[in-house]
Order: sequence, then C-alpha cells, then structure tokens
Amino acid sequence: MSHPFQFDLLATEGSARAGVFQTAHGPLPTPIYAPVGTQATIKALTPRQVKEAGAILVLANTYHLYLRPGDELIAELGGLHEFMGWDGPLLTDSGGFQVFSLAGQKQGKKSLRTIDENGVTFRSHIDGSLHRFTPERVMEIEQNLGADIAMVLDECAPPYERDYCEQAMQRTHAWAVRCQTAHTRADQALFGIVQGGVFPDLREESARFLTALDFPGYAIGGLSVGESKEEMHAMLEVVTPVLPAHEPRYLMGVGTPVDLVESVARGIDIFDCVYPTRVARNGTALTRTGRHNLSNAPYANDPAPLEAGCSCYTCTHFSRAYLRHLVMAKEMLAATLLSIHNLHTMLTLIKDIREAILAGRFADFRAEFWAARERKA
Amino acid sequence: MSHPFQFDLLATEGSARAGVFQTAHGPLPTPIYAPVGTQATIKALTPRQVKEAGAILVLANTYHLYLRPGDELIAELGGLHEFMGWDGPLLTDSGGFQVFSLAGQKQGKKSLRTIDENGVTFRSHIDGSLHRFTPERVMEIEQNLGADIAMVLDECAPPYERDYCEQAMQRTHAWAVRCQTAHTRADQALFGIVQGGVFPDLREESARFLTALDFPGYAIGGLSVGESKEEMHAMLEVVTPVLPAHEPRYLMGVGTPVDLVESVARGIDIFDCVYPTRVARNGTALTRTGRHNLSNAPYANDPAPLEAGCSCYTCTHFSRAYLRHLVMAKEMLAATLLSIHNLHTMLTLIKDIREAILAGRFADFRAEFWAARERKA
Repeated sequence: MSHPFQFDLLATEGSARAGVFQTAHGPLPTPIYAPVGTQATIKALTPRQVKEAGAILVLANTYHLYLRPGDELIAELGGLHEFMGWDGPLLTDSGGFQVFSLAGQKQGKKSLRTIDENGVTFRSHIDGSLHRFTPERVMEIEQNLGADIAMVLDECAPPYERDYCEQAMQRTHAWAVRCQTAHTRADQALFGIVQGGVFPDLREESARFLTALDFPGYAIGGLSVGESKEEMHAMLEVVTPVLPAHEPRYLMGVGTPVDLVESVARGIDIFDCVYPTRVARNGTALTRTGRHNLSNAPYANDPAPLEAGCSCYTCTHFSRAYLRHLVMAKEMLAATLLSIHNLHTMLTLIKDIREAILAGRFADFRAEFWAARERKA
Repeated sequence: MSHPFQFDLLATEGSARAGVFQTAHGPLPTPIYAPVGTQATIKALTPRQVKEAGAILVLANTYHLYLRPGDELIAELGGLHEFMGWDGPLLTDSGGFQVFSLAGQKQGKKSLRTIDENGVTFRSHIDGSLHRFTPERVMEIEQNLGADIAMVLDECAPPYERDYCEQAMQRTHAWAVRCQTAHTRADQALFGIVQGGVFPDLREESARFLTALDFPGYAIGGLSVGESKEEMHAMLEVVTPVLPAHEPRYLMGVGTPVDLVESVARGIDIFDCVYPTRVARNGTALTRTGRHNLSNAPYANDPAPLEAGCSCYTCTHFSRAYLRHLVMAKEMLAATLLSIHNLHTMLTLIKDIREAILAGRFADFRAEFWAARERKA
C-alpha cells in the first residue's frame, strides 16, 4: 500500500464487508450511503437536516460546480466543505458521467461533445459555452474543490456497445494513470473507476488494470445506466473478487433499497444516489418495502405518519394528510419533509446492514428484507 | 369586558405599547409579528425553523385552507395546530381580503365575485368552482380551523373610492355583528376589523362602531393596499385613539421594518406580512437598514455572512458567496436560508422594539433606527 488512506475491515460475511475508511474529515463507517448535493446543496435541505437524517458522507458533482460557481472561486473561499457548510467527509465525482450524458444530450442541434485521447470537449448545459476536461484539468478542479475522496476522469460508454465499451475502458485506464500522476493533494483519496459495460471480460480486465495502479479505493462506474439488475449483479460478481480486499469499493450512482442489500452482498462498501431526494421532490415516499405516491387520494384524510415507528423529523411531526396537502398545493415544504424521510430510510437501512454484518447475521437480515417486501407486495 | 381574553399592558411610551395577550396556546408578547403560512406552511420552512427564527404567532389564510384541503378535513384531523405541526398560537384571517382581491382578479373573463348584503359569491382561483362566504359560514370555517385568534368577515374596498368605502364599511359592520352572534368557540378570540379606506371620518366611525361591540381585539384592515405611508399613518392616528386601550390592535398585512417601528409608534400591537418570506424567495435579504439582492455580482466571492453579528442559522453557517450561488443555481435552499434570515430580522426587530418600550427608551430606539438607515443610504 503506497498511499496513506487506511481502510480497516471489521467483519465480513460471504462477500459482504463492514469496515472503516479514514478521511481527512473523519471516519466513514462502511457500508455507507452518500446523499447527492449536485450543486453543493442537497436539494431542499439544510446541512443540519442532512446530518439529522443520518448522513455522514455527501457527494457533490464536479461538472456542475466547475461550471457554476467555479472551482477556483470555491478554492478561494476555503474549499467545498467551507463553501457548503458541510464539515463531514465529502466526495466528488470526476464530471465524466455528466459530460458523457448531460452535456451530450441536452443541447439538441447545438450538441458538441468530442472525445479524443487527451480528453473531452463539451458545451455547458447552462449557457452553451465551450469547455474542455483533460485528466490533468479534472485533477486540478477536484483538488480545488478539496473533497476527501476524488474520482479519476473516466469515459462512461453505452453499456451494450462492445467496441465502444472496450475503447472507452482503454481510455479510462490511460486517463487513470495520468490522473494519478497529476494528483498531489495528500488529504484527498483518489479512487480509480472500473469500466467495461456489461462485458465480464472487460470488467475483469479493468479491475485488474486499476488494481495494479494501487489506488486507495475503487469505484465501479457505468452501471445502473439502463442494464438489468441481473446484469449489474453479474458485473459486481466479476469485479469485486478481483479488487483488493483491503481497499473500499464504491458503486457509483446506485441505488434503491434493493440495490443496497444486493450490492453489499456482492462486496460493495460505498453508494451514492439522487434517487431518495429526486423522488421526494415528485411527492414519493420511500420505505424499505416500497414507494408511496403521496398524491394518491386515500392519503387525504390519513392521520398516520408516513411510516409507523419511523423516528425521522417528518414521521414524528406530520401526518400523511398534511404531506399530501403540501404535495397537492405544490409547497416547497413537501420536498423538504419527503427528502428528510427518504434519506432517513436509506441511511437507517445502510446502518442496519452494517450492524447485521458486524453481528454476523447479514444473511438473515437479507432474507428478512426480502420477506418483508413480499409480504407487502 | 364581556369576553375572557386577557390583555395586560405592561408599559406605554407615547402611543407605543408593550403587553401580553393570553391565548389558548400560550401568551403573545406584544408588539408581535406573525409570519404568514398561507397554505398551512410558511413557505420553504419547517415549523422548527420558524420557531428557531423567533416566531411565536403564525398566520394562516382561511380562503386558501377552505379551498384546499378544506376546513372540515382539518377539523376532522384535529384542527389547524395539529395539522400543520405548530403548537404555538395561530391566527386566521376571514378570507375576505383574498376573495376581494385574489378571486376577483385572477380568473380573467371568467371572473365572478358578486357581493350582496348576506355575503359574497366567488370562484376558486384553483379550479374556477363556485363558492359562497357569508358571515355565518366564515365563522363555521374559522371555528373548524380552530386558530387562537379569528377575524370577522369584512369587505376590503379600493381605498380611494369614498362611496364604495362607506358602503363596504357599513356591510363590514353588519357582518361583524352577525359574526359575533355566530361565533361560539370559547378558546378562540374573535377580532373586529376597522375599515373606511383613506377617509378619517369613516375610519373613526368604524372604530367607534366596532368598539361598542366589545371585541377582545381589533384589526385595522384595508391598509397597505396602494395608499401612501403618510395616508396609512394618518389612518392609524385616527383609529388607535378611538379603540379601547385594554384590547390589542392588529394592523393586517403590514409590513416592513419601517412599518413596524412607525406603526408601533402609532399604537399597533400585532402585525403579519408575507413580505420577509416573499422577497426571500426572490433572492432578497432584509436587514433593518435595507434590502439586498443576492444575485448582484459583488456577492459572488464575498465570504462574509449576510449580516455581520446576526445570530440566525443562515448568518452563522453560510457566506454571501454561497447564498448567491444558491440563488443563481435556482436551488430551493436559497429560499429556505433567506427566509430564515429575513424572519429573524423582523422578529428580532419587533423583540427589540418591545424591550425598548418596556425600558422606556422607545423614542431613542426609533431615532437610532432612522439614523442607522440614513447612514446606510
């Protein structure tokens, strides 16, 4: 191990692991779930509300913050922690995913996103202005932002196009080497990203290549982008056995309650996803066993909390009837209260998963999780 | 005094008064400022944030809650306090103002708002459906909502049309009598509303008529609807000397920092206004000395808090640069953080006004308030 970032595995059960990863802003108990603060804010929530919901790690998006307000401005103001008022651990992605999806799709006929061996040129989704990301430039941006965990620049290809996936994987590998060389910030852990679409041989090759570079952690990218759960699970089953046991593994942009349970069972330690807060803003509440659309009429006069026994601020103070009223009246407080509950759902689930692994009863936990869903269905 | 609602005057200085009004959900220290929760929520804030900003009394709008989710549903769910999670004192208006402005204006050619001696028929601004408010029906609605303070149904006329103002005042008086008869809820204080536009003789007549009915409090309606500050002040100077000293006076829908200082100086005890939260949602921060548009470019790299020395959550955790970023990025958190600060500004101002009156130094406070504004200008 040629890096200073310590990851202690405290318990394993099958492929599932419970550990602690040390960051400059405190320890990350793993498995862990990071809410997403795209523009340096978890939408509709104060940092205090995010912390009260149980969050320890928060993700912010490099692409968005580079464009607005700018990484240099954030550095000048003391870095991302100081800027957004989050004193716990932070993680930034590399911007690659947004460049290859958001910036590629949204400009219609004006679309421009050209990839070459040295990087990618793209137009801002905000004002159409031209920008360029190279591995070195992205390292500069992420080091300006100053998150505790940063990601290498990767290319996220359509998962079923084999030639494209192979080419993108090779480029991702070359960029990973260049990122590692360009990255100098000692208080920031740089993770490699495994690519390879839905192709087991590519995924395995990618995991082996990156492992040889000895990163302090490994992300698995390009999943949950259209492929089936079975395909995603198959990729995890190929990749995690290749990755070193003594480094954390981060499944990017995933997921749902089912994703957490099933991906931990396949050796994943870190998750992030916009899912709980995005569906909250659409009036949907999450529980471990399903989702509930608050605009449904039966909630109109329902005095019960969203979820019986839930200890979140929303469930201990408000009825389903009130939440439905806020949704129907398009009040901002609906997004706030549903986001609090949905984050609490995901964050208590991951905490319970971790405790189950530590207690050597994750298999039972997983079985009971599925049984509860089937009872509800 | 034929009602059970106690109002203790603790100190007076000129026309300014400091007192305590007892409600079923706790004492109101006066002068007091009520944030507005139109649809049973102060937009973008949780009740906890509203309380932390210093609010004691909250206003909700009868017109909006009658239409959605419905006063009967709220009663069935335990009343407005329970419904919206606010355990402190609440105040509801009568819906009259909204019917005479909102419902009258917004439906374009479909507009229907016919007034007769028995009430007003109007169309919902939500779905165009037909509804009717009579004094008796409004008392039923407000008693269903169950606020600690309720208002009689009044007619709010254009302030410069004398004939209309006189007619509306007469109708308001007749309706006040009918409301008083129909109102039976012993834990709810029903206030009369003084009307009369900008006409001193009408205002005086209205104050005398209502005083004879012996309400536990008196509102002054139909001001801050287009007339000048001088005209508003002139009306207050006519009305408050006529109203009984031993009952609270509520200036409806007012106001700004200047309005608070100048209206307290003219004998007002209770205020409500959407102003601080509405401008917050437009990216504007309030201080005692002025307003600041956060989208202005100089804030982009300003590490200072909104207001030096301010103890609110926003000022103790975030920079102007971050708040500007949230405004520019159209993030919901901008509305939340600016609403917290703006409410804190208004609520600490009214608290300081009260303390100045109790200490016999309100004249000095008022002079210093104006001097500070002139230094800033």
